[in-house]
Order: sequence, then C-alpha cells, then structure tokens
Amino acid sequence: MSGSIFGKHFTVTTWGESHGPAIGAVIDGCPAGVKLDQELIQRDLDRRRPGQSRYATPRSEADQVQILSGVFHGYTTGTPVSILIANQDQKPSDYDYLSAVFRPGHADYPYQQKYGIRDYRGGGRASGRETAARVAAGAVAKQLLAEFQIEITAYTYAIGAIEINPNRFTPGLIISHPLAMPDPEAAAQASQFLDRMAEEKNSVGGVVACTVTGMPAGLGEPVFEKLDAMLAKALFSIGAVKAVEIGSGIQAARMLGSEHNDWYQYQDDGTLLKKTNHAGGILGGISDGSPLKLKAYFKPTPSIGQEQRSVNTSQENISFAITGRHDPVIVPRAVVVVEAMVALTLADYLLIGATSQVANLRRLYKG
Amino acid sequence: MSGSIFGKHFTVTTWGESHGPAIGAVIDGCPAGVKLDQELIQRDLDRRRPGQSRYATPRSEADQVQILSGVFHGYTTGTPVSILIANQDQKPSDYDYLSAVFRPGHADYPYQQKYGIRDYRGGGRASGRETAARVAAGAVAKQLLAEFQIEITAYTYAIGAIEINPNRFTPGLIISHPLAMPDPEAAAQASQFLDRMAEEKNSVGGVVACTVTGMPAGLGEPVFEKLDAMLAKALFSIGAVKAVEIGSGIQAARMLGSEHNDWYQYQDDGTLLKKTNHAGGILGGISDGSPLKLKAYFKPTPSIGQEQRSVNTSQENISFAITGRHDPVIVPRAVVVVEAMVALTLADYLLIGATSQVANLRRLYKG
Amino acid sequence: MSGSIFGKHFTVTTWGESHGPAIGAVIDGCPAGVKLDQELIQRDLDRRRPGQSRYATPRSEADQVQILSGVFHGYTTGTPVSILIANQDQKPSDYDYLSAVFRPGHADYPYQQKYGIRDYRGGGRASGRETAARVAAGAVAKQLLAEFQIEITAYTYAIGAIEINPNRFTPGLIISHPLAMPDPEAAAQASQFLDRMAEEKNSVGGVVACTVTGMPAGLGEPVFEKLDAMLAKALFSIGAVKAVEIGSGIQAARMLGSEHNDWYQYQDDGTLLKKTNHAGGILGGISDGSPLKLKAYFKPTPSIGQEQRSVNTSQENISFAITGRHDPVIVPRAVVVVEAMVALTLADYLLIGATSQVANLRRLYKG
Amino acid sequence: MSGSIFGKHFTVTTWGESHGPAIGAVIDGCPAGVKLDQELIQRDLDRRRPGQSRYATPRSEADQVQILSGVFHGYTTGTPVSILIANQDQKPSDYDYLSAVFRPGHADYPYQQKYGIRDYRGGGRASGRETAARVAAGAVAKQLLAEFQIEITAYTYAIGAIEINPNRFTPGLIISHPLAMPDPEAAAQASQFLDRMAEEKNSVGGVVACTVTGMPAGLGEPVFEKLDAMLAKALFSIGAVKAVEIGSGIQAARMLGSEHNDWYQYQDDGTLLKKTNHAGGILGGISDGSPLKLKAYFKPTPSIGQEQRSVNTSQENISFAITGRHDPVIVPRAVVVVEAMVALTLADYLLIGATSQVANLRRLYKG
Repeated sequence: MSGSIFGKHFTVTTWGESHGPAIGAVIDGCPAGVKLDQELIQRDLDRRRPGQSRYATPRSEADQVQILSGVFHGYTTGTPVSILIANQDQKPSDYDYLSAVFRPGHADYPYQQKYGIRDYRGGGRASGRETAARVAAGAVAKQLLAEFQIEITAYTYAIGAIEINPNRFTPGLIISHPLAMPDPEAAAQASQFLDRMAEEKNSVGGVVACTVTGMPAGLGEPVFEKLDAMLAKALFSIGAVKAVEIGSGIQAARMLGSEHNDWYQYQDDGTLLKKTNHAGGILGGISDGSPLKLKAYFKPTPSIGQEQRSVNTSQENISFAITGRHDPVIVPRAVVVVEAMVALTLADYLLIGATSQVANLRRLYKG
Repeated sequence: MSGSIFGKHFTVTTWGESHGPAIGAVIDGCPAGVKLDQELIQRDLDRRRPGQSRYATPRSEADQVQILSGVFHGYTTGTPVSILIANQDQKPSDYDYLSAVFRPGHADYPYQQKYGIRDYRGGGRASGRETAARVAAGAVAKQLLAEFQIEITAYTYAIGAIEINPNRFTPGLIISHPLAMPDPEAAAQASQFLDRMAEEKNSVGGVVACTVTGMPAGLGEPVFEKLDAMLAKALFSIGAVKAVEIGSGIQAARMLGSEHNDWYQYQDDGTLLKKTNHAGGILGGISDGSPLKLKAYFKPTPSIGQEQRSVNTSQENISFAITGRHDPVIVPRAVVVVEAMVALTLADYLLIGATSQVANLRRLYKG
Repeated sequence: MSGSIFGKHFTVTTWGESHGPAIGAVIDGCPAGVKLDQELIQRDLDRRRPGQSRYATPRSEADQVQILSGVFHGYTTGTPVSILIANQDQKPSDYDYLSAVFRPGHADYPYQQKYGIRDYRGGGRASGRETAARVAAGAVAKQLLAEFQIEITAYTYAIGAIEINPNRFTPGLIISHPLAMPDPEAAAQASQFLDRMAEEKNSVGGVVACTVTGMPAGLGEPVFEKLDAMLAKALFSIGAVKAVEIGSGIQAARMLGSEHNDWYQYQDDGTLLKKTNHAGGILGGISDGSPLKLKAYFKPTPSIGQEQRSVNTSQENISFAITGRHDPVIVPRAVVVVEAMVALTLADYLLIGATSQVANLRRLYKG
Repeated sequence: MSGSIFGKHFTVTTWGESHGPAIGAVIDGCPAGVKLDQELIQRDLDRRRPGQSRYATPRSEADQVQILSGVFHGYTTGTPVSILIANQDQKPSDYDYLSAVFRPGHADYPYQQKYGIRDYRGGGRASGRETAARVAAGAVAKQLLAEFQIEITAYTYAIGAIEINPNRFTPGLIISHPLAMPDPEAAAQASQFLDRMAEEKNSVGGVVACTVTGMPAGLGEPVFEKLDAMLAKALFSIGAVKAVEIGSGIQAARMLGSEHNDWYQYQDDGTLLKKTNHAGGILGGISDGSPLKLKAYFKPTPSIGQEQRSVNTSQENISFAITGRHDPVIVPRAVVVVEAMVALTLADYLLIGATSQVANLRRLYKG
C-alpha cells in the first residue's frame, strides 16, 4: 500500500534506489504461455538508458536485464516474473554535499516530512532511475499486447515551445534520433535549443505524445476505473508529469458539442468508423475501437547547475548549486517510460475485461 | 473489480442507474468518531442537483439523502456508511426512442461492446446521475478532512473561451451564482453565451479549478500511487473530463528549470514557505505543505438537440435528434463533483499516510 | 479496507447494523448476462431467517429482498447489483440494559477498544444479522456458478457431540428439517438435546459440512491466494467459526503419506479420477477436479440466558443475564451462510482464473 | 492478482522457483524507521533451511539473505525492501524423470490444468522452497512487531499421533531440538517414529501450534477481514496445511455456551483479564487483548520413496517412485514458516488498525 505496486490483475511491483546495489520489478499475474524475448526488454531499456547522446546524463550503465523467475523454456509460466537490473555506476559519496539540502523541484523535502529518513543519494527511491524497472516490466506487457495486435508508439511531441509539425511526421526518428522527435526540422531546432540550455546550466520541459493502435472496443471499466482515468494515473506516476490529456484534451473545453461529438458511420465494407476522434478512443471510460491518443506534459528537469536558493535540514536558508551534468530535458528518455506505463495499464485491462460477460466465461470453461 | 469502488482505505462503492429506483454509496473505512452532519451532505447534493437554474436540466428531484448505517448518536462508528438517494423523476419510457441508437459522445457503443447488454434509459450507469452518489460520499470525506483544517474549494474557471479574471475573483459567487463562476463579469458573459448555446441546441465545454488549503506536508505515496496521480485518476473518472493539470500544468512544458523550481525559504517567524507554487503543492507524488492547485478540462455536453448522424444496433447509418432539454454546459454542476473526488482522494491518503513512520505507530499503540 | 468488502473481481460489500433501518449488499464485478431469479435469492434468505422453528430466534422478519440496480430485463448488466433488506423488527430500546455491558463471547469489548464507540443494539455490525446480506449476495453468486454446473451443498454435520451417520444420509432433510441435518436419527436426537439446552438456558456448538460438485480442475491461485486459503478465510469470516478443515483435515496430521496421497487413475471411459479424495479437491491451492469437501466448526451461541459474570464500561465487575430468547445453536441457520461464502469465493475465482493462460485470452479477444 | 502478493498495507510479494537462479520477496509498505537486523533474518532462514538434521532434506544451501533496497544506515526508509536468496544447489536435470508425471499429493496436475505449462523441476513455484522468501519477509515483520512487544512463538505440537504433553513443556527445545518439539519425551518418541518412516520410505503429518503474546486489544477488522479469518488464510496458504483452528477450535463445536464463554474480570491491580481463553484471543474478528492461540494441521509429505500409481501427461496410468531423500515430516521446518505468516498478518493489521478512530489521526496529524 505504500505505492510501489501497479495494476490489479497484471500487477507490477518495482523496488530499488538510485544508488543501491540494484533495482527491479516483479510482475505477478502475467498469463502463462506468452513467448518472452529478453532482447526486446533490453532494447527498451537501452532507449531509456542515459549516456546515449550529448543531451542526456553521461552515466554509463549497461542496464543489463536479468530474468530470475517465471519463464520456462522461453514462455511465461503464470508465476511471478522477477526482473533485476544491477546498478553499476554507484558513487553514493558524490551526493554527500546534498545530504542536508532540500533541492527545489525535487522530492527531498516531502520525503523527509513523510518518512523522517531519506536516502539522499541521487534522489534515492524518487530518482528517475526507478523508471528503468517500469520500462523492463512494460516491455513484458508489450509482448503480451503484441499477441493482440495492440501497438503503442510514443514520441517527443515538444521540447519547450518547439513542437513537431504533423506534416513532417517521420516515425523513423523516434528510434533513430536521440531526441525521439519525429520531425527533422523540429528536432534540429530542439537540439540547438538544448545546447544553449546546457551552456546556461538550465533545463526545459516538453511533451510526449502517445498513440495506441489495434485497440478492441469494449476495454476499460466504468465509473472510477475508467480506462482514461487509469492511463492518467499511470502517466502522472512518472515523476515530472504535470498534465495529461486524452483526445482533444485541453481544447475540448473550448469546443462546442456539435464539433466535439464524434459521429459513427458504417463504411461500405461494413466496418464501423468514427469520422473524427476527439474522444481519443475512449468514451465513458471504455475504448471505442479507435486509436488511443494521449499527451503527457513534463516539467523541466529540476536538477540545474545554476546557483539556487533553498533550505537545509538545520532549518537554514542557503544557496547551493548542483554539480555534475544533468539532462537539460527529460522528455526524450521519458518516451519509452510513457510507452511502458501505457502498456502496463492496457495489459491489466485486457485481463480485467475478459470477464465482463458471462458468455465469455462460458466459452472458456465449457469449451 | 468492475470499477465502482474508489479508494484503498477510505473506500467508496457507488451503485445505481439513472432510471432505476435509487442510487447510493457505501463508505467502508471511515474512521470512527467523525461527527456527521447530514445537512452538509444535503447541501452538497443541492449544489449538484439539476433544475436550479435555467442553464441546467430541469428534472426536478429532491435528491434527499438517507443514511442507512454506520452512524450512531451522530458519530461514525467505523462500520460502513450506507447512503441512499431515491430516483424520484424516473420516466424510463422517455428513452425508448434511443434504445437502439449509439449516441455520439456517449458511452452507448462501448458499453454495448463490453457487456452485450445495456440499460439505455438516460445513460443507465454511465449517466451523470451516478455522480450524486459521489457527492454524498465526498461530503462525508469533507467532514473528516475538516477536522484537520483541510478545505477544498472548486469553481468554474472557464466556460468555453470565457475565463475568470483572477483580479476580479469573488469567492461568494461560487455558491450564490448558478454558474459557480467567481468573477461577475465573466459569469455575465458566460450566461449570455449559454443562452445562445441553448437557442442553437448546442453545448460547450469548460474548466473547473480546485484549490486545497490546510494541506500537511508529507501526504501521498511514492512511485505509482503518487498523490497527483491519484487525483488525476479521480478527476478523469468524472465522465466528461479530457485533461487534468496540477500546478503550472500545461505551461510547465514550456518553462525553464530556473523558472519552474519553487524555492523554499524560512520566514522570519520560522515558517517554511515556497516563493512560488508551480508544483501545485506536490513533489515526487507527496504534498509539500503548499496549497494544492488543480484544473480539470471538460468536454461539451454530448447530448445536444441538433440533428446528428450515427449508427444503430441494426448496423445502419441513421440521423436522429435528442429530445428534451439538456444542460448546454456541464461545468457548473461538476464543480461539487470535483470537490467530492478530491475529498475522497485526500481522505484516503490521510488514512494511508498515518503509518509511514514507525514513530507514528508507537504514539498510537504505546500511548 | 475496514473489512466489509469481499472478493477481488466478484466483489461484495455488505453494510448495515442489526437494529438500523436496513442492511444490504452491493456486488461489483458480476459479469453481464447472468439471468437473475429474485425468487432464488428470497429462498436462501428464508433458509437463514429466524423464527422458522422452535430452535431459532422467534424474531419475525419478512427479510424481503429488493434489487435496486444492476439488473435490466431480468439479466445482470455488469454494473453493481445493489440489494437491500429492510429491518422490520427493530426494537433498539430492548438493548438499553446491555449498553454498558461487555458480554462474554461477543465482540462488545474488542469493538469498544478498536473504535471507541459502539452500536450496542443487538450486536450492531457484529450481529449475525449481517449474514443475511451475505446470503443474498451468495444467492447471486450461486446463479452464476449454476451456469457452469457448479453446485454447493452445505448441511448440519454435528450439533454438539451428535454427528450424522453417513450411512443414513438423507439429503432432503437439508431443506425440509429445521435443523438442516440430513440424518433422521441424528436430527431427532439433536432436537431433544436442543430442547434441553433451551430449558437450561444454555447453548451448544456444532459443525457444518459443505460439498461442491462440478468443479473444473485448475481453479485457484498459487501461493498466498490458494483456493483453500480463501475458502478458509471466507468461512472464518462467519462470526462463530473456530476451525476449518478441508478434505481429510484434522485427520491428515495423523496419516501416513502412503495413505493420504490420492492416486490418479484413468478410467476405461477415459475420464480421470482420484481413487480417494483426502485432498478435498484442492492441491497446491488449485482445484484438481474432484468435489470440494469442507467443514466449519462453530462455537456455541454466546447469548445464553444463564447469569454470567463480566465487566462494564465503568470498569466494574458485574453479574448479568441476557433476556429474551436466543438460538440454543447457531449451526442450522449458518448452513446457508456457509453456502453463500463458498459461492462468493468460487465466483471470484471463476473470474480470476479466466486469464491464467494467454490462449484463453486469444479465444476471447480474437474470436 | 495471481496470488503471490500478501497483505494490504504491509505487502509482501514473493517470487521464484525451486530450481531457478534465485527466490525473493519484496516488502512494500513497511513503515520507515524500523531498525533492521539482517542477522535476525538469517537466523530464521537457518531454522527453515534443509539439511540441519537427519529428518530433513539434505540439500545443502547456504540460504544467504541479501537486502537490495529499502534500508539506509540500518533503518527502513519506507520504500520497498527487496530481499534475494540465491538458489545454490540447483540440479534441474535431477527432475527430468518426473517431467511427465503428475505426482499424487502434489500440485503438478492442477498447475498443468490451470497454466498449460509447468516448471516441473522440484515442484517449481509450488515447491516448499518458496516459503524461504516468506520466512525472510516474516523476519522483517517480526522486527516491526517486536517494537510493540508482540512476540510470536510456534512449535511442533504433534508428529503423527505423538503430541507434546503441556506438563513437560520445555521452550528451549523449540530452537535447540531439530524437531522443534518442546517436550523431551515426545521429541524422543517422534525421532524414533521418523526413523521408521524414513526406513519405510513413508512420511507422516503433524501439527504446529502458535502463541502470540503482547497483543493489544482492538486489532483486526470486522466482517470479512476478521483477524482470525486472515490468520486462517495465511496458514492455509502454506502448502500442506489441511486444517486451522483458533482457541478451543475443533472442541468448541462440542462445548456449551456456559463453558465456552470467557468471562472478563478486573483484577485487584486494575488489569482486565479473561478467566479462560477459549476464544484464542479474538472475538468478532478483533483481538481481545489475550494471547492468540492457533494450530495448523499438516498433511504428510507427499514425496515418498515407495512405488506409487498415477498418470502422466500422455494420459497413461503408470507406476513410479520418487528418488532422492525427502523429509519424512514437514512440520519441524514449517514451524518458522507459521511464525512468518502470523507475523506478516499481524504487521499488516497493526498498520491497518492505526486509523480506526479519528482520535488517533488527530494525535498523528495535529501533534
């Protein structure tokens, strides 16, 4: 109940601190019989890993995934899948100068107030490093979803005020460009802007967009466990997220009913389409068969090299500066974390939704 | 697990359809010893009730709350508090003409896909009427929170493009004005605009803002159960919400770290303040002692009187129009629903957080 | 989280006090499409109802069930099924003389210590009356299970030292005899014994046995959520239960491995049988396809008319006697409660188990 | 939801197979500030470890505990405590001859039916080896409970028909004797009996008794989450348990109300005592301040060296014999597992119970 467990049926527990010996995830509730490719997990971890570009923390970590249980002869067995990632670049003493400081924009002060004790080394449990465990678990969820043709694609939609132009959308850049920004012009602009940020020891926020294709209609639960509600929770659980929208999102508040309502229409080939997708693929908390459309808004990296004011544990007002290099923007590395959280949510709902109708149960239990 | 239960420790289950005999809520986990004023529950229900103004559905329902259990001599006993609200204005047959139509913007189609059966009368379980049960439960949560000086105030921030001007902020209007919009000029403008919407058989979206004062630092849980994540889930669980932001929210994505970081500072009187509150009162998922600042963005009411296109259960493309009067905007009645969901979330975290430190347990169990 | 919710997927919340206006249950998570016969619910409530025989409390209550939501045109819709049973025979003032007494064998003292406040009228929430709500919910679960030919039969196995003789097993008596004891001789003996108990203002314990037929193999979850573990929890949640056994149970502790192991054997017709069923139908927490065999051991009714010693809320040692008539044995009325708790548990596992294999999900989602 | 998570607030997830690289446990929800002595965890693991005596499996495993997270400077931080125990004596190929056999008394067949795939090596997930992770987590829970003077002592009460005589109760033997049987005569008898069992390639069941002292009154939750119900679930989750009783247990069913009711009495020094403890320390699911008294009945070890009949995955009737040495009785090694499950349950309820009264919350949040 202290918050490190996600999901009802496809349940993930993550553990580990930034500078402890390891971090990890335990998935309980993954169905048996999923063919699990460890290489695909590694690939997603590599997308999140620091040190890939000049814009990201140059901490060099192999982030080598180990699967300790739950897989037999290449298939999941239905028992817990335990994943461990060793922390290979621990230098806890690097953080001693911050042990008494409550850094602005970080969780230092609230953690101290809540727990009365705090692993101050690199943010401890509140570090972004924890998201590596989510990415590994998310990569398992993706492999389950792939069996149902459900595919999740996230990308950098904006860095500061620089947004991608949909007309120049170039999906290949999501993987190939270090900023995961699928518009070559915007990516180039953003690169320049981030160089300036690095020079000025400053940082900037940005936006991750996410699309899910292959969604069946009817996924989600009513009332409090609406699919969009859980997706929002999943995305807001990523440290730096300050806003989430689905479909027309923010804009919906200014639209008229006659504009916003998505009209259904049977096509000549008998398929059902919505003419627009302002809903972002969810109505009443349940998927409508259209692609999901989400955006997550990230605040700027709170660790900046500029001198800042704050207070310390001795209740003094102080000035201090964070040393070392830090990402001037967190968004490109967060792209795969967004995918992971969406995947974990959808895997959970895929399982939960299997029993909505007694007719489904009949097919399972009575052949 | 089908979605009608909210909360881990202060747990609310709502039940009931729009045109069944009643709706209700059961609260399990409310601590014993809370003085419960039924009048305060009724007052919040009255704020949500339709028919109060010319902008809202003129269905006349007393929405009289009954408490069936869990209260003894005016105090909660720690056992489930069962709340029932009779549906007094049921005219199920009014909806027969819609029984085969999948209304755009409504949950009709996804419900049919998910369940294979659907109470089509007035939206059934997906109706906004369900939120009356939340409001009642929320009013219980508020009375618990009030014992700790935690106060929640929501209001209409925008209707369509008409936003309140903070310089004209007039809190009294939240209760006294039918639009719950605390800026007399904006409220007047919005009234005119809504008259036009009603004439045009159209509707519009809007924004509810919410502030929580009296927050202790240290409330919330790390990682997946972050306080902001759960608040987002709570707000997205309100049918028409398409975006949620906390603190600087959307704007955070364009800000620099040097702007966004809220600096702590001890005041001369020894109190700790943040100079700004871009975080909206939460860092790392845990409250920092500043007021919470949230916004929920609502889509326009999907029920409009204009002719619309859609499909029916016989897989035909059709044209149809929704009869009867419908709110041209849902936002003013949603204000108290937002308060309720925030109250339910905070009550839950107040309880969950009681055991963060073994020192707290010592005080309780060892006197 | 305060204990009135049962189940993970087929979730039941009960509410209500013995002498409040009503009690009830809300089922969330019942699949859509279950044909629901209200009469079958009523029939089970009638089996539990007091006043049927001279051995049971002569409080006359109609215990008329009302279904307030979740059912449309005779079928469940997948939304919460709210069930209400009015308390028609409330005489709260009858209990004033006990308001300060901590009755031995009752929950009075622990409730006071836990909550600091207590509805002392007829035991309040701790009253056996609460089980009526379970019986109603259980009758819904039974109708779901019946679709899969899973049938639950409980009966009085013993009253005090008087046990049924399996050679005289007469199933019809379970329903027709007020003691629900399917052995005419044992039932006659027990009737005489209970007459003596009533005369002596005393009470006695007993045993309920339960068999479940039609169990598919593979139901249950490993490790902590073993099917037998959850059944034990379900039965121990009935107030007066002091022991639970499955299969050979207590005797297993004295058996040899060579005796206890149930050998599998394919029959000539290709069906798989176990030659014995010491396991009671569950191995490793998962059903093995044999009938479930359970027993629940009940303590004597704690309310007896004899003078007893105890203490009161003023911290005095006192003597007192409970007035009115009370059941000299609780077991016959508990029979249908045992069935209900077993039904609720199995319904939950039927749903949970639907997603054990990805192959099952494929059949559902890919047609 | 697939069963490897225990607890609501003090939550333990175990993972790992008998012959995989490691097993482990993750505790989420342990309060911050518990001084954690790794040596005490190791000591409990050593009590469970095989190979200590001639009666137990001679697999030699160091069972060395590693703590990977959640502890800082010797104290818990409130974040997940991840515990890992390497499997050092893996010889998976030893089990190839059993890969197609459904062993009687084991979970082989139900697992295959449930999952369609099964790690057959040494029982895989269903192996008793999994309980090592519980013991490690339980040892953390014990250290939390010790801060509140709650102490748990389990011991071998019976092996087959050989029971301890309370008049010869010798607590030191629980730790010092390999059978953990605190009666020197019974222990000697049992040793001889087990030698014979080993010779005969047979096994026998037994009983573990458990007492908890230092219990505060008021711990537990009403209705479905009764403390005894959860303890029963916890004990039944241990693979070989076939019955659980609390207090007078089985005997209660034959007792009279006048015998069974425990009378309260204030002593001259003002303390409140019950004259008897038939309730076993729990009334209405909530602790009454007396010691808890539990017994768990274990079936005989299903792995025996005698030739047995069964079936295989090719649907043939077969004869086979299990090779290697196996414990002729599981009970002595299960003693510390019983302690662990009781500790995990009580730790959870200690946390859950902290918020029963709003008065408690006031003391925490308002100082």
